[in-house]
Amino acid sequence: MNQMQYPPSDAKQGSSSQDASTSFHTDFDRVQESMHSAISMNKTEILDAALDGFSEGYFGLSNENRRTLLLTLAREYDLNRTQVRELMKQYLGLELPSGDKSVEHLHEEEGSFSGFYRIERNLRHSLKPMYEVLFERLNTHPGGLRFLSVMRADILSFLAEENIASLRALDSYLKEKLITWLSPATLQLHNITWDDPASLLEKIVAYEAVHPISNLLDLKRRLGVGRRCFGYLHPAIPGEPLIFIEVALMKNVAQTIQEVLWDDPPIPECEATCAVFYSISSTQPGLSGINLGKFLIKRVIDVVRRDMPRISTFATLSPIPGYMQWLLSKLASAERSDSTFSENLLKPEEETALLDAAEEFTTGKNAIEVMWNLLSSTSLEWANSEKLSLVLKTPLMRLCARYLLQEKKRGKALDSVGNFHLQNGAMIGRINWMADRSEKGLRQSAGIMVNYIYKVEHIEENAQSYFSKGQIQASDDVRNYLERQADRQEETKD
Amino acid sequence: MNQMQYPPSDAKQGSSSQDASTSFHTDFDRVQESMHSAISMNKTEILDAALDGFSEGYFGLSNENRRTLLLTLAREYDLNRTQVRELMKQYLGLELPSGDKSVEHLHEEEGSFSGFYRIERNLRHSLKPMYEVLFERLNTHPGGLRFLSVMRADILSFLAEENIASLRALDSYLKEKLITWLSPATLQLHNITWDDPASLLEKIVAYEAVHPISNLLDLKRRLGVGRRCFGYLHPAIPGEPLIFIEVALMKNVAQTIQEVLWDDPPIPECEATCAVFYSISSTQPGLSGINLGKFLIKRVIDVVRRDMPRISTFATLSPIPGYMQWLLSKLASAERSDSTFSENLLKPEEETALLDAAEEFTTGKNAIEVMWNLLSSTSLEWANSEKLSLVLKTPLMRLCARYLLQEKKRGKALDSVGNFHLQNGAMIGRINWMADRSEKGLRQSAGIMVNYIYKVEHIEENAQSYFSKGQIQASDDVRNYLERQADRQEETKD
Repeated sequence: MNQMQYPPSDAKQGSSSQDASTSFHTDFDRVQESMHSAISMNKTEILDAALDGFSEGYFGLSNENRRTLLLTLAREYDLNRTQVRELMKQYLGLELPSGDKSVEHLHEEEGSFSGFYRIERNLRHSLKPMYEVLFERLNTHPGGLRFLSVMRADILSFLAEENIASLRALDSYLKEKLITWLSPATLQLHNITWDDPASLLEKIVAYEAVHPISNLLDLKRRLGVGRRCFGYLHPAIPGEPLIFIEVALMKNVAQTIQEVLWDDPPIPECEATCAVFYSISSTQPGLSGINLGKFLIKRVIDVVRRDMPRISTFATLSPIPGYMQWLLSKLASAERSDSTFSENLLKPEEETALLDAAEEFTTGKNAIEVMWNLLSSTSLEWANSEKLSLVLKTPLMRLCARYLLQEKKRGKALDSVGNFHLQNGAMIGRINWMADRSEKGLRQSAGIMVNYIYKVEHIEENAQSYFSKGQIQASDDVRNYLERQADRQEETKD
Repeated sequence: MNQMQYPPSDAKQGSSSQDASTSFHTDFDRVQESMHSAISMNKTEILDAALDGFSEGYFGLSNENRRTLLLTLAREYDLNRTQVRELMKQYLGLELPSGDKSVEHLHEEEGSFSGFYRIERNLRHSLKPMYEVLFERLNTHPGGLRFLSVMRADILSFLAEENIASLRALDSYLKEKLITWLSPATLQLHNITWDDPASLLEKIVAYEAVHPISNLLDLKRRLGVGRRCFGYLHPAIPGEPLIFIEVALMKNVAQTIQEVLWDDPPIPECEATCAVFYSISSTQPGLSGINLGKFLIKRVIDVVRRDMPRISTFATLSPIPGYMQWLLSKLASAERSDSTFSENLLKPEEETALLDAAEEFTTGKNAIEVMWNLLSSTSLEWANSEKLSLVLKTPLMRLCARYLLQEKKRGKALDSVGNFHLQNGAMIGRINWMADRSEKGLRQSAGIMVNYIYKVEHIEENAQSYFSKGQIQASDDVRNYLERQADRQEETKD
């Protein structure tokens, strides 16, 4: 790690051709030099200064310069492939001992294995990129973990623009490191209350992603009687939960968001038998893909069960952010394509009912086009018309069940919130019509919301079968929507 | 990780041939099965039970069965070498792109590197032995980190009996994991005081390794005015410092242990200019080789400097545990060998003085033998005779300087305490005659003690040059003992 010249000539050349502006250039060079020092220095005093200089300088860089710097880090502080190849050749030259692994033959074989152990250990080290030193040093430096999270957020946004292999490798390595450092053992579960510092509570207001908090009174209600809020804190990022979850204590699993966002608690806490997770928000875009929510939910379930033994049901009331986008594109492609090849999105009786009901609102050459027109209209008038809502309800609920249970991307649920809860071990419990009548709710999921249910005894099993086989657990209630469809398809074939 | 049958047939066979006693055997099998479950299970409930079952069962096993179990873990839960070799062959089949690393050529090259990144990532995973799962799971399981430390203490004691390659590899892997988990970022510095729980203070009494604590009053004094005690705690091992250090606040660097082990503080704390680390003890044999002391000393220096800005000198008063053992073996071999080849242990004038002074105490065919007789005598009468002490002082101090500065094993200081402080970045400041007159002190180092000095601005530099080049920093004071010897050798040659 310390054999490099300072600064590396390649890296300098690379950056000097980037920009003509001198002061701009000087800034970039200074940050790059402090990055190099942070990797190669050994004296603590200087190292701390270099780490501070690097992170402060980084914050001052333009987006384009951050990108160049991260690419330099990914490419110039990579691993020594010549050394890796050399070790591999040595390894492949070793002869594998016979397969007899019984303890009696252990001692004879021990000698023949020691070469393997030695090269394997060396290879593990050689396969660590040089930038690991920077990550490790930042992790133990005050403020460094938070900085790494900012840096990863940048990496992810650059990757979203362009998929660059070296940057992808940098991200994947940093992500694994962050997973280790943010293991559940290092995180503290904190019951967030109105007694917490305002500096912490303002983070809750700022990062609440699901149901925005409108004012102080609203915040106080979320932390008041009948509700709980729990956050995960890391000792290195004090006063700022990495992720938090809001819980409502209820008599039954809520079917609409209005039931949850009450002003006054509908029942005394002691009568609650159900904990509804109505919002879970992450505060760090740089921790994307690092599933802290899974552990948070499990810890919260444990804490609530211990404190309130009457509570036996743990459920969410969740948005379905991708439903309408998926449905509109399905409708559009069905409408464009030849009808014989188009998917059976609507049943014949639904088509008839829809064409009848929609007459006064819109026209279209068939029911598919009519449905597309209604759902994509900016006025959202279908939601205000009882007649239209009624005829749309059946296909929208059935197609929503299909979207949640069957639509996948790389073996995982297409819906991001669905994927989150399913990988955490939940099952799909119920879909609720007109559960969120807000404009956002209507636009993203036609107002439908879903209850994911966490059954303590099945969490790990569900998570495992979802992870390995993509299996999605669902109640009969939800599954019935599809079976009715399957029945119909059977009938059609006959 | 989950493709194994349960339980693995090889492992079962191995263990069943180990012992004839059935109940004994059943115990072992049960622990081995819970170990296997702990590695291969996925349901949390069962996993927690398996981890508990494994650690409880392990504690109940005989030494011999623990050894067999650990060997099974090392051998049967190793890595998949066929897969590793397959990946290596793929890797060696890739062609390294040209050396042009400038940012302009980056995009052309990105594609050609993606194969490397992919196989490197896969190889990192394949090179993780299956037993890593057990370590990871124990680390996040309550009590698991402490259990891992016990397990490693066992591994080290088995390795001390017999060097088995697979067990050595298991140890080296576990050690690296422990280093990650016990990084300074996860450790809390705690100022241990008389107000701490008795359950914590009893650990200090039990583990104080340098100057045993005789009673409660003695403990209270160590935590009282003019002294400090600091420990490193890990959140997963509450109430039990992993390592602790005792500090005396003084006017000058202490030259004898009596100055440090006072009953009443010799000066008011506000007059202290010097912090003497007079004892540092680790409580976990299983963390051997994981240098927590280095970070503890640095943190303590920071805290003391912040709280007491008048204190500018940080030094130890340390034993020299290996000195007499080394010297006696040197004397014995010098005496056995032909005098022309023997090392110049004594100067001619020292030999004469020694033979004169020792006449009434012992006989010997030469000064070397006389010295050996005096130093190895169980009565230690040389220390009570002013005459003998006087003639022995010069050679004992000079040879002690040589032992500390020049005697090495694999490039590191032979003396274990010396190696500890030098790798932490200290320098050898002064050696002190008759600094510890206790029987233990006389036997291990002829009563000599050494002050290692920590100069804040040189800690990292010293640590680095000791680590990479084996360089030992020492004051002129100590170095002079050797130069006088070198002068003499020069003279002899002339």
